[in-house]
Amino acid sequence: MAHGREQRSPDGMTEKCGVVGVSLADRDAARPLYYSLYALQHRGQESAGIVTHDGFQQHSHVEMGLVGDAFDADDLDQLNGTAGIGHVRYPTSGGVNASCAQPFSVSFKSGSLGLAHNGNLVNAGEIRSELEGLGHAFTSNGDTEVIAHDLARNLLEEDLVRAVKRTMGRIHGSYALTIMHDESVLGVRDPEGNRPLCIGKLEDGYVLASESAAIDTLDGELVRDVNPGELIVLEPDGSGFDSYQLVDRDDTAHCFFEHVYFARPDSIIDDELVYDARRKLGSELWDESGIETDVVMPVPDSGRSFASGYAEAANEDGADVEFAEGLMKNRYVGRTFIMPTQDERERAVRLKLNPIRSTVEDKTVTIIDDSIVRGTTSTQLVDLVRDAGAKEVHVRIGAPPIVAPCYMGIDMASRDELIAADKSVDDIREIIGADSLSYLSIDAIASVFGRTKGDLCLGCVTGEYPYDIEGEQTDRDVTRPAVGGESAPADD
Amino acid sequence: MAHGREQRSPDGMTEKCGVVGVSLADRDAARPLYYSLYALQHRGQESAGIVTHDGFQQHSHVEMGLVGDAFDADDLDQLNGTAGIGHVRYPTSGGVNASCAQPFSVSFKSGSLGLAHNGNLVNAGEIRSELEGLGHAFTSNGDTEVIAHDLARNLLEEDLVRAVKRTMGRIHGSYALTIMHDESVLGVRDPEGNRPLCIGKLEDGYVLASESAAIDTLDGELVRDVNPGELIVLEPDGSGFDSYQLVDRDDTAHCFFEHVYFARPDSIIDDELVYDARRKLGSELWDESGIETDVVMPVPDSGRSFASGYAEAANEDGADVEFAEGLMKNRYVGRTFIMPTQDERERAVRLKLNPIRSTVEDKTVTIIDDSIVRGTTSTQLVDLVRDAGAKEVHVRIGAPPIVAPCYMGIDMASRDELIAADKSVDDIREIIGADSLSYLSIDAIASVFGRTKGDLCLGCVTGEYPYDIEGEQTDRDVTRPAVGGESAPADD
Amino acid sequence: MAHGREQRSPDGMTEKCGVVGVSLADRDAARPLYYSLYALQHRGQESAGIVTHDGFQQHSHVEMGLVGDAFDADDLDQLNGTAGIGHVRYPTSGGVNASCAQPFSVSFKSGSLGLAHNGNLVNAGEIRSELEGLGHAFTSNGDTEVIAHDLARNLLEEDLVRAVKRTMGRIHGSYALTIMHDESVLGVRDPEGNRPLCIGKLEDGYVLASESAAIDTLDGELVRDVNPGELIVLEPDGSGFDSYQLVDRDDTAHCFFEHVYFARPDSIIDDELVYDARRKLGSELWDESGIETDVVMPVPDSGRSFASGYAEAANEDGADVEFAEGLMKNRYVGRTFIMPTQDERERAVRLKLNPIRSTVEDKTVTIIDDSIVRGTTSTQLVDLVRDAGAKEVHVRIGAPPIVAPCYMGIDMASRDELIAADKSVDDIREIIGADSLSYLSIDAIASVFGRTKGDLCLGCVTGEYPYDIEGEQTDRDVTRPAVGGESAPADD
Amino acid sequence: MAHGREQRSPDGMTEKCGVVGVSLADRDAARPLYYSLYALQHRGQESAGIVTHDGFQQHSHVEMGLVGDAFDADDLDQLNGTAGIGHVRYPTSGGVNASCAQPFSVSFKSGSLGLAHNGNLVNAGEIRSELEGLGHAFTSNGDTEVIAHDLARNLLEEDLVRAVKRTMGRIHGSYALTIMHDESVLGVRDPEGNRPLCIGKLEDGYVLASESAAIDTLDGELVRDVNPGELIVLEPDGSGFDSYQLVDRDDTAHCFFEHVYFARPDSIIDDELVYDARRKLGSELWDESGIETDVVMPVPDSGRSFASGYAEAANEDGADVEFAEGLMKNRYVGRTFIMPTQDERERAVRLKLNPIRSTVEDKTVTIIDDSIVRGTTSTQLVDLVRDAGAKEVHVRIGAPPIVAPCYMGIDMASRDELIAADKSVDDIREIIGADSLSYLSIDAIASVFGRTKGDLCLGCVTGEYPYDIEGEQTDRDVTRPAVGGESAPADD
Repeated sequence: MAHGREQRSPDGMTEKCGVVGVSLADRDAARPLYYSLYALQHRGQESAGIVTHDGFQQHSHVEMGLVGDAFDADDLDQLNGTAGIGHVRYPTSGGVNASCAQPFSVSFKSGSLGLAHNGNLVNAGEIRSELEGLGHAFTSNGDTEVIAHDLARNLLEEDLVRAVKRTMGRIHGSYALTIMHDESVLGVRDPEGNRPLCIGKLEDGYVLASESAAIDTLDGELVRDVNPGELIVLEPDGSGFDSYQLVDRDDTAHCFFEHVYFARPDSIIDDELVYDARRKLGSELWDESGIETDVVMPVPDSGRSFASGYAEAANEDGADVEFAEGLMKNRYVGRTFIMPTQDERERAVRLKLNPIRSTVEDKTVTIIDDSIVRGTTSTQLVDLVRDAGAKEVHVRIGAPPIVAPCYMGIDMASRDELIAADKSVDDIREIIGADSLSYLSIDAIASVFGRTKGDLCLGCVTGEYPYDIEGEQTDRDVTRPAVGGESAPADD
Repeated sequence: MAHGREQRSPDGMTEKCGVVGVSLADRDAARPLYYSLYALQHRGQESAGIVTHDGFQQHSHVEMGLVGDAFDADDLDQLNGTAGIGHVRYPTSGGVNASCAQPFSVSFKSGSLGLAHNGNLVNAGEIRSELEGLGHAFTSNGDTEVIAHDLARNLLEEDLVRAVKRTMGRIHGSYALTIMHDESVLGVRDPEGNRPLCIGKLEDGYVLASESAAIDTLDGELVRDVNPGELIVLEPDGSGFDSYQLVDRDDTAHCFFEHVYFARPDSIIDDELVYDARRKLGSELWDESGIETDVVMPVPDSGRSFASGYAEAANEDGADVEFAEGLMKNRYVGRTFIMPTQDERERAVRLKLNPIRSTVEDKTVTIIDDSIVRGTTSTQLVDLVRDAGAKEVHVRIGAPPIVAPCYMGIDMASRDELIAADKSVDDIREIIGADSLSYLSIDAIASVFGRTKGDLCLGCVTGEYPYDIEGEQTDRDVTRPAVGGESAPADD
Repeated sequence: MAHGREQRSPDGMTEKCGVVGVSLADRDAARPLYYSLYALQHRGQESAGIVTHDGFQQHSHVEMGLVGDAFDADDLDQLNGTAGIGHVRYPTSGGVNASCAQPFSVSFKSGSLGLAHNGNLVNAGEIRSELEGLGHAFTSNGDTEVIAHDLARNLLEEDLVRAVKRTMGRIHGSYALTIMHDESVLGVRDPEGNRPLCIGKLEDGYVLASESAAIDTLDGELVRDVNPGELIVLEPDGSGFDSYQLVDRDDTAHCFFEHVYFARPDSIIDDELVYDARRKLGSELWDESGIETDVVMPVPDSGRSFASGYAEAANEDGADVEFAEGLMKNRYVGRTFIMPTQDERERAVRLKLNPIRSTVEDKTVTIIDDSIVRGTTSTQLVDLVRDAGAKEVHVRIGAPPIVAPCYMGIDMASRDELIAADKSVDDIREIIGADSLSYLSIDAIASVFGRTKGDLCLGCVTGEYPYDIEGEQTDRDVTRPAVGGESAPADD
Repeated sequence: MAHGREQRSPDGMTEKCGVVGVSLADRDAARPLYYSLYALQHRGQESAGIVTHDGFQQHSHVEMGLVGDAFDADDLDQLNGTAGIGHVRYPTSGGVNASCAQPFSVSFKSGSLGLAHNGNLVNAGEIRSELEGLGHAFTSNGDTEVIAHDLARNLLEEDLVRAVKRTMGRIHGSYALTIMHDESVLGVRDPEGNRPLCIGKLEDGYVLASESAAIDTLDGELVRDVNPGELIVLEPDGSGFDSYQLVDRDDTAHCFFEHVYFARPDSIIDDELVYDARRKLGSELWDESGIETDVVMPVPDSGRSFASGYAEAANEDGADVEFAEGLMKNRYVGRTFIMPTQDERERAVRLKLNPIRSTVEDKTVTIIDDSIVRGTTSTQLVDLVRDAGAKEVHVRIGAPPIVAPCYMGIDMASRDELIAADKSVDDIREIIGADSLSYLSIDAIASVFGRTKGDLCLGCVTGEYPYDIEGEQTDRDVTRPAVGGESAPADD
């Protein structure tokens, strides 16, 4: 629409989606789905959708925009049925594309399917080609349609569980899926556990969600995470759920960036409260590269938990550092506004973040953030804080340098744009103008999460991926499924 | 959105779509497609869409609303390519459904397909089931997706012409299709010629359109109608077209209502100018049931040509009747407005049509219209004219009574709502309060169109259809294709 | 917003507004106001507004757009009160200006005022200056705010009738006003009767409107025109109205173009049905400059009544001319659409009007229209008809040449743009490419309206105005009121 | 539009506006105005407006919605001129009212005026009546139009400075005004200094703004606060400003709630950084009523600075309390969404705030906020934290109880709705379910701001106002100006 406008920060990473699923005893699922999507809004702002089934037919409402804009009360009223799934989708960099909004619905021989997908397949093209060879025609470019067609096809010959298993045997990549098959709600998590998915209990039903905060919003209780490779089938009457461990892998490939950046601090992912994880990472950061300055200040809101863990560790160590919220964020940033012209940009850098002079003037300052992607924001920040009178400006980052892109469902920027892709830490320090710069080590990440590196997806910080991705190195022994071989998943 | 609002006349029939296709030498097709859709706007106001192909990829823009609202200049600029198809869709009575907007696009093994469809299949359900049995999954309820899947499947095994032929051998019903296969534009007309489709020549290319008025708008020349059962393939360089007579039937089933009601008077359909046809029908109406009154007045705009033919025939017969435009139509009718409450409705009947008193006061009046569907408007009209001082009010209708619904692509009202479904002409006369009422005979229709009844679809005025429709009688020896038998169309 | 888009025909004149006022016994006035504005939509499409008063306070809703778009059912529900006024406003050529939308509401010492104005003052600037000298501050550039301030000021010292009289003594120009003073609804027509205003009776109240068609829409009866210089005060209980003849002029200055062009054919203005007037003008046109051709065809919709009067007179004279609707108008013209590029324009001329070939091919043709403003459309039309095969194309116009702009409330084009401003009829004929061209004489206008020329405003066809307009000649002895002299209107 | 939707927190107070003014050497003022309004967005979300003057004429763009929605790039481009003023307006509780959006523009005898107003007059009605008695008519109910008319009137007789002085002598209440008189930009602050206004220096001009954060955004430097009763006139060439101390009062009446609640922490108001003030208030709160609990946690974002001051003071005192961000705010709260039904509300309380379990479980907790208005949110919060496992929940508030409404420009809730209006602190404690509850004392407020109580407006916490307000008590010797007496401000 309007060129010269931006939507949300251009200098961050964006999560590629959030999914939910709900099955209740005798209440319509639409409102709980709506509120849970609202709780997952940070995972996708481009579109929102809900699909329900009332026992006779599917109802679907998918629209561009935030959850609050995509639905009105009438829309929810028309989404009948005690079971349903929902989806929020990320903003694309290029253009907004209504045809990729989800959940994706199809009808097929044995009924209807709705799919909501968070993640990214690395072999969708191959499966798509194979299905096209069998006569399938596709209306979108998305992975989700590919999964839907494959699953529909398998359901012609198999029962639901075996059909899902067969599909899981063919697709390779990251996925947390909520699926609606007629009135049944299913949840599937990829065998590597790359994307999160958890199960919650409500008074009158069960819920599946990308993050436990969505369960909290419904006043429910987190039951547990869905296991890597597990299929969960919610009972249609809301009374419980069945579990099927369909695929087992020796190694998992959990995405540590979910914890570092994307997830809400109040979510529990893989048994770990995100807030606690970040505080521990902050504490590690102090241990690894702490520097005693007058003030420690977070980049709001992303660096806050790290900074508080860092400062606390520092003070426990006997250092005398003050934790201060010295950067004031305009809380309307993220809404539409007209970008400053190139000429104005320098003048207008404080539109988004404004340093509180008294907290930094004549002081040595450490700024804490969770990551550096392109480096633009960090450069501006250091500059701002220095202009506001800081004597020294040090930067500490609660994660390792991002050296390679993510193929598993996070929109991080291309390799060209990643400042750490081809620069040393000292080069970056010089570019952003900091007196010192340190990142957290990969070992610290593994240690905080209590996993071996082999159980984490570290592709973006090592350049070696736990998947077989064309043109990239892998860090383990993985092979894509031979797509055509329907016998591949087989042997059940 | 807002209940209590109406969109367009509830008491008419609505055409179910208009289609176009354009292939040019080296000009982008988007604007010619846009203007030709604008010329066909009367055939569908719910949505408008254009699909083009630039040699590398397909571009698509489909949106709800009138042509002028669905596209802006930027949209057209992004629809690159010298070839494309377009579609306008009818307003549904129930609810607006974005997922059915057209052209319908899919990608498949051998490329991309776009389809724009005017008409209605009677065996879509069967073909759909069969395709579902082969693993196909569908995103909509529409016939068009069924045709697209079937065609895509056939294209795996056959060349384009044979694939279309095979699909035509499976589908049964009415269809005028424009199809985009990669950068090729095709036009197909159903074997019965039920829906219109014609070919036009531009200075630098060729065009396919539901009505010739769309060709006029592009300053092109009508070449000829597409024949029933014929496939037209436009040359990608705009230099000509190829013809393939793929199916031949002994009898056609042309829809006479296209001429009576839907088409623009300035369109030529099946070699007959619609304006002339209507004047002849009006002339026949005088011959069959003329009554000499002081004034003859059309219901604007639908009855105008009939009335002028009727009045002219009357005067040639020596009767002294004045032709007068005595009913004034609010030219903003058809735009959104708040419906009068039940209580106000009687008061507000003249919102839409207002009689010009001087033309009717103390006079005997004949009102001419093209059809009566529910009878509501006619009742109001007779009442209005009488209130304005007419001594007598006679009604003459330029078509036979509509006694049965249309299954071939016109949204006419259900059988329950059709006033003539179970009432005699005299009963209707009494209900609408006219001093006399006559309809045109079916014989007159056949005679004006110079065809036997066996070459017309008369289902809505006889209750006997030239198709095999479940629960209805047929007027001829038709059999649905045996869907599964891929050999059916075969052996060409 | 979107350049490259047009709104409505650029080659016509546009009326500058329609006004209504309603006072009912005990029904809310909002809906009748809404429907009557809908009936006057042709008088203004830029904005629509309604102001009501419920006995305690004023309610106002004014919005850009057509009547149907400016209000929803909730809006009407909130416009409480049995009395109110309404307004539709013309589209400006330059830019849309929300601040000029009407009715204009103010509160002042003795209550509230709402004003809806059709017309144009020639001395608004002077009155404004005088009021500014007294300390008044204005929020808009409009005449209406000037009238409102003046009236509010007079109401401090006088009763309502004398205050209106005093204001009428100061303002000079054309005006039909509906005024809401607290719950009283008033109607005022300028002393020259330039703009129309009439009174209608409903079952339960009275209505004032620019045209009687608005009264018909409410199923009311036209009582009579408001006289030039008359004030009408509707009884708040809907039981009747009072009349005050506040100003008397020897000569009136009725706008004949209301009848020729703007008003609906079914409206009665100054006791003359517009449809009849146009037929008579058509008949005079035949008498003055008739030419026997095979076909007579109107430019739809504006030339229709003229052409039918012309053809009838011709045939009564024994000429053998066929009346035919040979030009087909796209009924969606007037809605938003993307303008053809210069290059496409020639190709796309038939977007709006398409000749029906059979009506003109190999025939001599007379095209009848009501006026020629810039000449562009006429040129295209003659061309189109000739291209469609006409042997000769003659043009007859039902009004005299427009040689000068209108200052009284019609948006006609500037003098530069008027083709007849500096060209002879024969020059114009040559430009538009007609075989012959004739306009109606001014005498014929006067004769049809049964008035002396001295009772008509003929400024646009003579260049001499019945008002004192700076830089223009006047055709009579008029003097602007000495604004400051509050004694001017005096002598009461 | 949509009932059942809420816009922004119903349980807070809302500021009634922000104002800016800019005068530059030779750059258009529109973009700096836009960005400064963006920085003041928290002061008003209902509408945004900018008025500029290019030396010849005024340009104005005022629209409903957030700054980013109210303007697009074209809008800014059309706001020509190196000088201008801007305004953001608060959301009304009742209904949105476009007619009150600002800046308010009028033209009058000697030119044009634009006014942007933050504050509330207590004698607007009287001045309005008097002006009405002189014939003035008003288009809105707002104070601003009254000031505009009065000023325009005074400008007929006086030069600009004396005219402003005369107006200041008549109006009584709170006001920070930016005024555009032709191309001059003025700033006026009420004699009591109730509303903030400050002056900033840019590289190429000067800026006036409600808060210094707006100056920071333009990369400018805060020069100083405008003094109570002072008029600032910016030089049109951006080279400086003139100061006129037009009114002197013995006592001021600074609003302490600006510091406590409304202003951005990074703004400096009356020489005090808001962030520092809040930290000091937090520190005082510990001194007055500190309680040692395991954890201290702020209500985000309002309580954050208080809590950090409180925790720091506690730890300096040797108490061992952990500062933790234990309440997670959904950062999309504030955007449109469908309210839970009554039934769902209990379930859905965690939509907005979700406690991080690990921070409170089995701990004693102190929640810190800046104020309690209705008490609803506090009740929910205490409940949430207790449900999350807290052993004790104590509440500390960084301001005194609000016992009376604000008449000076803050939308606080009516007296009925204020929980402290008629309840003791212990009653409130019981209602919200806290183990203990303490507010800050009024003395602490005065002490932190280094002023006597006589220099603060404490109306909302004492019920005694420093203004003469009908039906309320005053805490000092104030008299409203005798409006009519133009000699009142006199003697200059």
